[in-house]
Amino acid sequence: MEELNILNLLIILSSAWIGGSVAKKIGYPAILGELLIGILLGPALFGLLETSEMINVLAEVGIILLMVYIGMEINFRDLGKASWAGLLAAVGGFIVPFALGYYTILYFDGTQMAAIFVAIAVGVTSLATKSRILVDLKLLNTRIAYVLMAGALISDTLALVIFAGIISYVDAGSIDSLGLIWVAAKAILFFIFTALAGIYLLPLLGKYLYKANITSRTLHFTLILIIVLGFSELAEVAGLHSILGAFMAGLFIRDGVFQRQISKDINHIFHDVSVGFLAPIFFVSAGFNVTLDVFQTDLWMLVVVTAVAMIGKIVGTAVFYLPSGNGWREGITVGTGMNGRGAVEIIIAGIGLQMGIITSEIFSILVFMAIFTTLSVPVMLTWTTKWLRSRGELITQESRSGYIILGANPLGLFIAKQLKGVQEIVIIDGNRELVAEAKQQGYKTVHGNILKEETMEDAGAIEKGTFIALTGNSEINLLAAQLADDAFFIPNKIVLVSPNENGVDVDLLDKVNATSMFADKTELEPWSNRISTGNFQENKQKIEEEITTREWVKEHQNKNADFLPVIIINPEGQKRPFHYNDDILPGEQVLYISPDF
Amino acid sequence: MEELNILNLLIILSSAWIGGSVAKKIGYPAILGELLIGILLGPALFGLLETSEMINVLAEVGIILLMVYIGMEINFRDLGKASWAGLLAAVGGFIVPFALGYYTILYFDGTQMAAIFVAIAVGVTSLATKSRILVDLKLLNTRIAYVLMAGALISDTLALVIFAGIISYVDAGSIDSLGLIWVAAKAILFFIFTALAGIYLLPLLGKYLYKANITSRTLHFTLILIIVLGFSELAEVAGLHSILGAFMAGLFIRDGVFQRQISKDINHIFHDVSVGFLAPIFFVSAGFNVTLDVFQTDLWMLVVVTAVAMIGKIVGTAVFYLPSGNGWREGITVGTGMNGRGAVEIIIAGIGLQMGIITSEIFSILVFMAIFTTLSVPVMLTWTTKWLRSRGELITQESRSGYIILGANPLGLFIAKQLKGVQEIVIIDGNRELVAEAKQQGYKTVHGNILKEETMEDAGAIEKGTFIALTGNSEINLLAAQLADDAFFIPNKIVLVSPNENGVDVDLLDKVNATSMFADKTELEPWSNRISTGNFQENKQKIEEEITTREWVKEHQNKNADFLPVIIINPEGQKRPFHYNDDILPGEQVLYISPDF
Repeated sequence: MEELNILNLLIILSSAWIGGSVAKKIGYPAILGELLIGILLGPALFGLLETSEMINVLAEVGIILLMVYIGMEINFRDLGKASWAGLLAAVGGFIVPFALGYYTILYFDGTQMAAIFVAIAVGVTSLATKSRILVDLKLLNTRIAYVLMAGALISDTLALVIFAGIISYVDAGSIDSLGLIWVAAKAILFFIFTALAGIYLLPLLGKYLYKANITSRTLHFTLILIIVLGFSELAEVAGLHSILGAFMAGLFIRDGVFQRQISKDINHIFHDVSVGFLAPIFFVSAGFNVTLDVFQTDLWMLVVVTAVAMIGKIVGTAVFYLPSGNGWREGITVGTGMNGRGAVEIIIAGIGLQMGIITSEIFSILVFMAIFTTLSVPVMLTWTTKWLRSRGELITQESRSGYIILGANPLGLFIAKQLKGVQEIVIIDGNRELVAEAKQQGYKTVHGNILKEETMEDAGAIEKGTFIALTGNSEINLLAAQLADDAFFIPNKIVLVSPNENGVDVDLLDKVNATSMFADKTELEPWSNRISTGNFQENKQKIEEEITTREWVKEHQNKNADFLPVIIINPEGQKRPFHYNDDILPGEQVLYISPDF
Repeated sequence: MEELNILNLLIILSSAWIGGSVAKKIGYPAILGELLIGILLGPALFGLLETSEMINVLAEVGIILLMVYIGMEINFRDLGKASWAGLLAAVGGFIVPFALGYYTILYFDGTQMAAIFVAIAVGVTSLATKSRILVDLKLLNTRIAYVLMAGALISDTLALVIFAGIISYVDAGSIDSLGLIWVAAKAILFFIFTALAGIYLLPLLGKYLYKANITSRTLHFTLILIIVLGFSELAEVAGLHSILGAFMAGLFIRDGVFQRQISKDINHIFHDVSVGFLAPIFFVSAGFNVTLDVFQTDLWMLVVVTAVAMIGKIVGTAVFYLPSGNGWREGITVGTGMNGRGAVEIIIAGIGLQMGIITSEIFSILVFMAIFTTLSVPVMLTWTTKWLRSRGELITQESRSGYIILGANPLGLFIAKQLKGVQEIVIIDGNRELVAEAKQQGYKTVHGNILKEETMEDAGAIEKGTFIALTGNSEINLLAAQLADDAFFIPNKIVLVSPNENGVDVDLLDKVNATSMFADKTELEPWSNRISTGNFQENKQKIEEEITTREWVKEHQNKNADFLPVIIINPEGQKRPFHYNDDILPGEQVLYISPDF
């Protein structure tokens, strides 16, 4: 055993953290800051940090774990739902820069293999980059976000498959055509075997562990690591790279294979250990391999590769996007959004450097290309979305949509009636008569105990966007929201909280990421009675100045003793439930009810 | 970047998992199986596995993370409460084998340094070993378990402090007395600085993060890793070993520094990544360094060291334990329980080997000593506890004791009255009148919303052993049990579940490790009414044959329409609540109530 160089590790991790935090602070992905701090403190500039065997080992384990995590985040259902538009954007945004990148390197007298590596690197789209930018630009519920997400997922998968082909070819060296067939066959066999194992064997293991009542998170973690290493070794045996095995393993460790809570915990561990510990070590040390000389010796190539990457990505996406019928402006917007390069690009470039396929100059160019393109994303995406918004062409679309309403009581049915429209509504209740009544009114219903996963599954909870809990029992509402959050990842959870000094208080909602319906504690019974007897009137108020829902309620409490804000209607007529933590924009209307005296 | 040897890693992790699982299956700690599989498959026997730079790096990172986790598990409050008896056992169980070990090595012509290393190794007590054995032998709630736990904690701390002294001395080499003072001063400065930083700076950081509303688990994890590495580097600078820094960091990352949920998650990550991934790599590769030749060349020394370790530990513990007044038989029992050696011993021996202080023969002897002594624990502890039990000297004592009863309703007060005795009872309710009534009856009470952490804190939840939730609202009961489990780690949670088709079902209790009071769904109101009006009678039934509470309820449902089992009384008159998942032993009585017709 040799001594660990703790100081080196400490400085690298601290630097990575500082670089990543600064980058995130100004709205960029952490990886950008990590690369830059590596360039800054590494041999390229100040020479304060350097790599070591220890750093390499940790970085490589970090990549493996990161690829597992990237795989875990790709959901087949999402890919399947990616739709025509997402597929078009992904393919166009990959193929065009790929082709341009390939010919650029040949033009600069690079080898064919180097050309293909660069082609892949300019072709990929960063997944991690986007979500934060989408939140900042308030784009999460637009069609663009949806297409971007799908596009990046497909592009990553595409890039890794092509990468697999290249790697197996490179590994084999110069061979005859029979040998080539064998190389291809091995790669294909790898994908078939891991896919079959992932689809059939992994769920069997999950079922076995479930039946044996084995719920140890640590044991699951160890087993999953063994599977990951097994898939990685298989990839190596098939002449591919271990990261492909890790990625495939991650792909299949998904919802429903293991118990939901355990899956979630394991996902967190892979995330924290890679994103919070080992992967930053890789990205910082990737910066160590960069040379600034390229700005003198190969400036022209750097400029061309970056330009090709940006233009190829944006134009390619926009052109291929045309058949979607969503317009060329949306195509360009999607293209600017897909222009970032991230973890997968740097990993592939690093492997190319390590295998001697690309030179250290090309590697440096690819890193700077990643930095420049990623820097461009928020700037350009801000322009293009403003442009779309100003033309009224920013189409909203939830990646998950539809409501689950818990409580078939009169108030629940009243709210359901208001929300009725494009999105599916499912009403759940444990009371058979109330469910029958809701069914008669034309709603999809589920009769069952809301606190059971089966009931939520029957209601299609995994695809729904909003969960509204409206029983008179705040604790049931909270527990149901917790289930919706924990097991079904429903993004919006809105619960009725009754005024009750002994029970659920509003601060408990935070823990399950829920907000309170009506933006105030509310007693169910009086309103349910008024609605069932018709003793109420509907009122609408148009909002002139932006106001939070909470403020709206406070203002009205002064004027009006008894009222219940139910729905917010935007100028296009779209409705959403009135709840805490929402802003009412000018031109929107609040639908509220009051007793009919 | 060099290629990772995935296959090697895969085989080592799989072997570790198999070895660990088999060991656990037959009731031994995983580390035993990991060491044995390392000896079996490593150079010592089959030579299938070998170490590599990569394995060493991962193993060393694993030890750092494991030491953080070991530190995290040591709670100052527990150490403070360790009491006279625990301290005596720890000191006796450390000093006597330490001295014997020291002179044994000198006798065998070892160096003084080697003698001190062996002395520490035979002195330490394994922490991880015990808890599983205690569960298997149903000892968790005995005074022995309590003393053992405290003893191991103190012994680990003691061993690490002495280890620190030795290391700083060895590192300094041969120096004059002024130099020696400087060496000691540096080590002491390290402990003072890290303790002050841990006590004052860390909570400030925690408060800052809390106030800045930073709740990212990943960010906390990264920051804590940076702190761990910082402390480790500081230890190195002070001439100590990095594991001491990691241990000190772990000690201070405790309850109340960071938000409870985040602390818990971080603790899980350190546990899973060390125990489930990296530490087993260390223990397997520790087996690689073992040579079987010692059975021929140094058999006598192996026998003597092992004998000294076992006899020194048991006799030392028993003798020093005498002043506790708990009797020499309990002392011997505690000694047999403390006889295991575990992670800390192997880590210290590994460092000694690495630094060239002990030879590979002595290292092998220490590994075998760890294996033999650990093997002896369940066997000998089974004997000694049987012996104590047969003499009626097995004293029960909960490490956490006392009840929190939620619900000051008549049924709650009735149960409190039954349980009244040695253990403290705190009654919580949100209703001021009911609380006043309970107070008048002489109970400690807390008035407040049970779902708020403050209320539980006021009730001293962190020290209580049992939480009983008896409100008529099952969901409140469940949420309260969840809080008791999540934030206050109360070991026993018993909740009343009402028959309600829409609400909490019994299977939800599993998730918060709770069981149902009365071992059946129960309506609160009727029983509370009967008790408040005196319309009930108390009955007792003596049990002849062991029966589960659930079975008891089922049997009585046939005979008796209306009854409520409340308390189980053992032959010594000790009472415990009647709940699901409990066994009633022959000679125990069930106190149940029924309506008075």
